[in-house]
Amino acid sequence: MSRTEPQGTPLSDQFHLYDTTLRDGAQREGISYSIADKLAVARLLDDLGVGFIEGGWPGALPKDTEFFARAAAGELPLRHAVLVAFGSTRKAGVAVADDPQVRALLDSQAPVVTLVAKSDVRHIERALRVDVEEACAMVRDTVSFLVGEGRRVFVDAEHFFDGYAHDADTALRVLDAAGQAGADVVVLCDTNGGQLPLGIAETVSEVADRTGLRLGIHCQDDTACAVANTIAAVQAGATHVQCTANGYGERAGNADLFAVVGNLVTKLGMPVLPPSRMPELTRTAHALAELANLAPEEHQAYVGSSAFAHKAGLHASAIKVDPLLYNHIDPADVGNDMRVLVTEMAGRASLELKGRQLGVDLAEKPEALAGALKKVKALEAEGWSFEAADASLELLLREEAEGAPAQPPFRLESYRVVLDHHVGGDVGAEATVKIHVGGERVIATAEGNGPVHALDAALRKALRGHLSWLDSVELSDYKVRILVGKTGTDAVTRVLVESSDGDRTWTTVGVHANIVEASWLALCDALVHKALAVSGAAGEMRP
Amino acid sequence: MSRTEPQGTPLSDQFHLYDTTLRDGAQREGISYSIADKLAVARLLDDLGVGFIEGGWPGALPKDTEFFARAAAGELPLRHAVLVAFGSTRKAGVAVADDPQVRALLDSQAPVVTLVAKSDVRHIERALRVDVEEACAMVRDTVSFLVGEGRRVFVDAEHFFDGYAHDADTALRVLDAAGQAGADVVVLCDTNGGQLPLGIAETVSEVADRTGLRLGIHCQDDTACAVANTIAAVQAGATHVQCTANGYGERAGNADLFAVVGNLVTKLGMPVLPPSRMPELTRTAHALAELANLAPEEHQAYVGSSAFAHKAGLHASAIKVDPLLYNHIDPADVGNDMRVLVTEMAGRASLELKGRQLGVDLAEKPEALAGALKKVKALEAEGWSFEAADASLELLLREEAEGAPAQPPFRLESYRVVLDHHVGGDVGAEATVKIHVGGERVIATAEGNGPVHALDAALRKALRGHLSWLDSVELSDYKVRILVGKTGTDAVTRVLVESSDGDRTWTTVGVHANIVEASWLALCDALVHKALAVSGAAGEMRP
Repeated sequence: MSRTEPQGTPLSDQFHLYDTTLRDGAQREGISYSIADKLAVARLLDDLGVGFIEGGWPGALPKDTEFFARAAAGELPLRHAVLVAFGSTRKAGVAVADDPQVRALLDSQAPVVTLVAKSDVRHIERALRVDVEEACAMVRDTVSFLVGEGRRVFVDAEHFFDGYAHDADTALRVLDAAGQAGADVVVLCDTNGGQLPLGIAETVSEVADRTGLRLGIHCQDDTACAVANTIAAVQAGATHVQCTANGYGERAGNADLFAVVGNLVTKLGMPVLPPSRMPELTRTAHALAELANLAPEEHQAYVGSSAFAHKAGLHASAIKVDPLLYNHIDPADVGNDMRVLVTEMAGRASLELKGRQLGVDLAEKPEALAGALKKVKALEAEGWSFEAADASLELLLREEAEGAPAQPPFRLESYRVVLDHHVGGDVGAEATVKIHVGGERVIATAEGNGPVHALDAALRKALRGHLSWLDSVELSDYKVRILVGKTGTDAVTRVLVESSDGDRTWTTVGVHANIVEASWLALCDALVHKALAVSGAAGEMRP
Repeated sequence: MSRTEPQGTPLSDQFHLYDTTLRDGAQREGISYSIADKLAVARLLDDLGVGFIEGGWPGALPKDTEFFARAAAGELPLRHAVLVAFGSTRKAGVAVADDPQVRALLDSQAPVVTLVAKSDVRHIERALRVDVEEACAMVRDTVSFLVGEGRRVFVDAEHFFDGYAHDADTALRVLDAAGQAGADVVVLCDTNGGQLPLGIAETVSEVADRTGLRLGIHCQDDTACAVANTIAAVQAGATHVQCTANGYGERAGNADLFAVVGNLVTKLGMPVLPPSRMPELTRTAHALAELANLAPEEHQAYVGSSAFAHKAGLHASAIKVDPLLYNHIDPADVGNDMRVLVTEMAGRASLELKGRQLGVDLAEKPEALAGALKKVKALEAEGWSFEAADASLELLLREEAEGAPAQPPFRLESYRVVLDHHVGGDVGAEATVKIHVGGERVIATAEGNGPVHALDAALRKALRGHLSWLDSVELSDYKVRILVGKTGTDAVTRVLVESSDGDRTWTTVGVHANIVEASWLALCDALVHKALAVSGAAGEMRP
């Protein structure tokens, strides 16, 4: 029996911090990750130090198959995490080696496979329409086969708690089948999310005694207890927790990775993340919200922008004397800030730290730091967000540190964009820019699929011949978030532009009531940042 | 000793469902209730059958003083609930009868007073700056005085759990002082919100044994366990729970009344609300969000619009057979609805089920169902998404069922949108539409903040006078999602438009490479759906 080597080095195999944002999290209404999004999510989770990343269901969803193929092709080098493919046991009445879905799990080349198995007799009989004997054989065959092929296998026992309450023997038979066939962990799933913590603790402890198996826990939030249930299971003996970023998931969602980690580390003293990564919790939570195209939840435990925000009044002076009397932890331990109202970035210390990361040293320049902080806060009040836009933040910090804005490679005089829905239904977009570059005034017009595409094309046409590196830079991602005002169309638009020159990517932000102007601001920042990098002035960008 | 009669008739005094939305909930960043809002919140809570409504802190906040005065003047006749005034014990070194804040509690005429008392020795010494002896005397004197004046008194033991862990004797002395002076309930408060359920259960049970007092529980959500901690406390013997609507409160918030009630009633079988009121849970939660000027949280347990929404096409056929296998309760029990989301994984069964929910019966029309499924899949492959766009899906299903598209209230000939970034930096947006409506050809031009705003304004201008209901319809939300293609600006844009006519909201979708055209498609669907509804043909929309 051979084992595929894990790609990363998890903190320790004694305890599994297992993320399923890319599979179960994506079940949340409104989330629809592209493959590029999925790769970016996995990179952030790996950077944070998560042990296992469930990437999706290869063979069932074409997007997930492609994600694993691109990971296997080297697009996802992982430092901490091991990639996991999720799938089902073989179909009833089919030999496991002939089951295309099981074959797709192998083809994914993921070193770990998590199999979902029904453990509630009612689901076995009514949804799966097989008897318990065959249900157990499906688990046994599939686990054995994958283990024989060198995979590490975990088994998610679906609807376990309801099934155990209704018919404990059947539920335990399914677990035993998995364990005997070589599954490393059997994960007790509260699939319908109806459990409460004291009951979870009792059942986990009982099942551990009765089976002797290594247990995991997977909770849904339908009683608003997913985090509590997860923690209670750990206290009762589970050593593998399945969570999703920000609790994303179907219905009321899953157990929030950030609250679970916060509780395990700060309340139970379990080092489930590398200690140096704990201050990245807040930033990572917000970046993962951006990738899901969702606003970060302000009141989220540990990482919400309001999680340590105190309304001025009663306790204000006492808080100043001894803040820890009024906070359950030191917010800095999770990268959050007590005074922060808009984002993690609003504190001096974190802004200084961020500047250092971006290669802008503000430690010796207290006025520049104060000025930058003031500017960030003012812009954030208008809807700007720098959490995912490091390149724009770097330009801002650099301007404060150096007392002058970076020299842009061109100067805009004006632009015009015309969109036509013609008689007959054709839709056209055309943009004209008038700019000054290299001592010349250049006017250029171009067409595009939409207003931003046309504007980008016109700008590139005008700059061609002036900037040697221009053709190497392309927009690799473009995100729009409407920040709702009083009425729908009367709102502020925030645009994030990710650019790439083949070697590096960098992200810039623009905010304006007009989406095209917001895009223009982000596009310009992207080119200014590239020009700085070419001249050797810009800090290191994310490779 | 006389007692002021309670205004309402709580379900039973055996268990207290106590709401503090109007006091602790109002600590949430962004909430600012007017007196009219406060009265409306109290009426909704009373209608729901809550036992105690904490109305505010008379004497400390002028708005709260006024609220109690207006309640006492007859503006708040309560059927179930008793009104509670919140306040502090007397000041150190002051006779209780001379303390104006205590006097204000009496003047409020609230039959119940909840006093906050410090029970953590560190807070007593560092924030209150008195010794434990005086802290206990402050509690004893104030409770005795108010009880002597005919008030029922509860005592909130602030920072109790931290205090008890640090110095149990002091914490218990404060409770005993309250109990001996006549407080009916001592409420153990996890003021910093750092507790977990198993610890809460252990402490509550221990304190109940050591004091023999009637215990309440008040939890904050800083570990994402406020609901779980509240339930654990009840299981350990607490018979009084303090919650806020939708978990509103400082930092991460408080225990959510709706999740606590849902859990107590459906999981522990405790009838804490009149059974006939349970189906009002969802409506009440949403109405209380409106009064707080906040959007209802879609993923909230029990009452969120997504709380019973299933995305997995996989299980849709099983859900149709036996929905309770996939829901932890019957959603109708709490006034909520199961929704099936139509996604890329959609099958026939889920589409048929969805059609039924939208009032389009496809059960007897297999060709129409097959045609609709094919169309949905083809559109989803292009980037359309119907899971949040019921109104567009309804139009599509109706077209298949009836063999013809719905008659739109107008026909577009063409539009043009011009965006100018002028010399000097001003940005303008202007749109012209040419449409045919009511036998006329109409041309209209309007300006806006951005291209979509301008186009919407021009369309409304052109239609004015032709559609009687036009002014009642407004865009209530507008969401943009870029579906990344190979390069950033060369992508498809998906727009979701939520419209409202005051009574109902409905959501439509548009997809196009050009964001303005995508928006146009969604705007048109919104008006077509409204026109159908006016003519009586459209199905029921979400109220």
